Amino acid sequence: MKVLTTVAEVKSFVRAVKKAGKTIGLVPTMGALHEGHLTLMRHAKKNADVVIASVFVNPTQFGPNEDFDAYPRGFSRDCEKLDSVGVDAVFHPSAEEMYPKGYTAYVTVDGDITNKLCGAKRPGHFRGVATVVTKLFNITEADKAFFGQKDAQQVVVIKRFVRDLNMNVEVNMVPIVRAEDGLALSSRNKYLSDKEKKAALVLSKSLKEAQKAFKSGKKSVTELKALITEKIQAEPLAQIDYIDIYTFPDLEECEMIAKEALVALAVKFGTTRLIDNTILGGE
Amino acid sequence: MKVLTTVAEVKSFVRAVKKAGKTIGLVPTMGALHEGHLTLMRHAKKNADVVIASVFVNPTQFGPNEDFDAYPRGFSRDCEKLDSVGVDAVFHPSAEEMYPKGYTAYVTVDGDITNKLCGAKRPGHFRGVATVVTKLFNITEADKAFFGQKDAQQVVVIKRFVRDLNMNVEVNMVPIVRAEDGLALSSRNKYLSDKEKKAALVLSKSLKEAQKAFKSGKKSVTELKALITEKIQAEPLAQIDYIDIYTFPDLEECEMIAKEALVALAVKFGTTRLIDNTILGGE
Repeated sequence: MKVLTTVAEVKSFVRAVKKAGKTIGLVPTMGALHEGHLTLMRHAKKNADVVIASVFVNPTQFGPNEDFDAYPRGFSRDCEKLDSVGVDAVFHPSAEEMYPKGYTAYVTVDGDITNKLCGAKRPGHFRGVATVVTKLFNITEADKAFFGQKDAQQVVVIKRFVRDLNMNVEVNMVPIVRAEDGLALSSRNKYLSDKEKKAALVLSKSLKEAQKAFKSGKKSVTELKALITEKIQAEPLAQIDYIDIYTFPDLEECEMIAKEALVALAVKFGTTRLIDNTILGGE
Repeated sequence: MKVLTTVAEVKSFVRAVKKAGKTIGLVPTMGALHEGHLTLMRHAKKNADVVIASVFVNPTQFGPNEDFDAYPRGFSRDCEKLDSVGVDAVFHPSAEEMYPKGYTAYVTVDGDITNKLCGAKRPGHFRGVATVVTKLFNITEADKAFFGQKDAQQVVVIKRFVRDLNMNVEVNMVPIVRAEDGLALSSRNKYLSDKEKKAALVLSKSLKEAQKAFKSGKKSVTELKALITEKIQAEPLAQIDYIDIYTFPDLEECEMIAKEALVALAVKFGTTRLIDNTILGGE
């Protein structure tokens, strides 16, 4: 596996791949890789000739009081994992390489899909995501890119700016990977104490119950929200940030679920904020 | 010459060109073509295998009280001109094709290069320019693109987001084309009465004087600005919008010109706002 740290190195690698008529699959990550990431890599391997992973903790998508500094980093372990699943090249740039002095261009996605959920709770987050992902798309000239459903709103935002700005990349959403006990895999799970980790199981359990209720005919957003809220509030260590249900993929408000809906939640356990979701009518 | 009106048509045209191993040159325009535009086309012909021109009066770069509705349009005349200089394809989309229902993604360039000159006078203008040009770059997969120095700040902005967002296109600035009497060619010259047109010659004359003064050793921005201002104020029909001098291409303030500097001005004649510029030390 090639380790590339500059934009120029990636562009030269990409030129050779394109010249050979091969397709490129990209999996952007912030490192601290777990099985969820490796599942994305395997999807990319299956659907593209050459797979590039990026490992970059992107400063522009963190708010001033968020966990940018604390975010887990471990590049050599990440490389071993990427190598083990057959990734062809990893792009691991410095912040200065991505945002040189005088940096000033951003991609923004306004409106209904960013003014709620994590978009409302983390101002500037999706501008940071859209900008870094645009850069990675341009640097790698990816034909296909793979993102986890764990960050469902992120996927909606990325698909939107790819469509709006007419980018030439196919964006694929890969289902959430969960531990055996149901906890959605996340690099931030490392922050949790054993007690918090156990308490956090309430997230997947409540989403599972919502799925069950939906399948047995409950279509009212108010009722489904109440069901989840009640279950999570019963867990003493859980502090709810948001629990919301919107149409998927347009993230519009609705009273009764007609087709697909995203149930998304953000809940804090101690100082750790976890997100999880499920798509009703779509799984 | 092919006339293409949908994004899909252009993408299919582009795929065939790329498959044949040919390069693409793009010249974005808002139509109402004059010799300045045709000079851009000839530059593109000389530097790329296949030339695509776009003709699109982009609504997102006009302010609410600007001349979007009045902006001159004449697509069949434009086509004749494009055909005559050997342009291979023209992209002439509707506003709905470019900005479909639910459109919400934009490219922004913040900071020093957009907070002055036309960026200060036309809020949102460069966001509209950056967005539509990004779309055109993605739609056409242009290897090279050509823009006129007439809109020098626009070129600076485009070069900046191309660099910052790591786009794979080479941006070329082509010198201003002037009528024999010195007036910089512009689609907006059509708005001028004969009297105003004659008065507008003060713009190129004052820029020429500034060049002369600079070449004979005058490097003080204050003095050069005063020289131009005095000359333009002596023309009764001229109402100055701005006359400014900044370093080029970073558009930073300076007192003494060390290397290259952009002298840019916007002046109204009646209801028509004209811009013109010259680069000191660079021409």
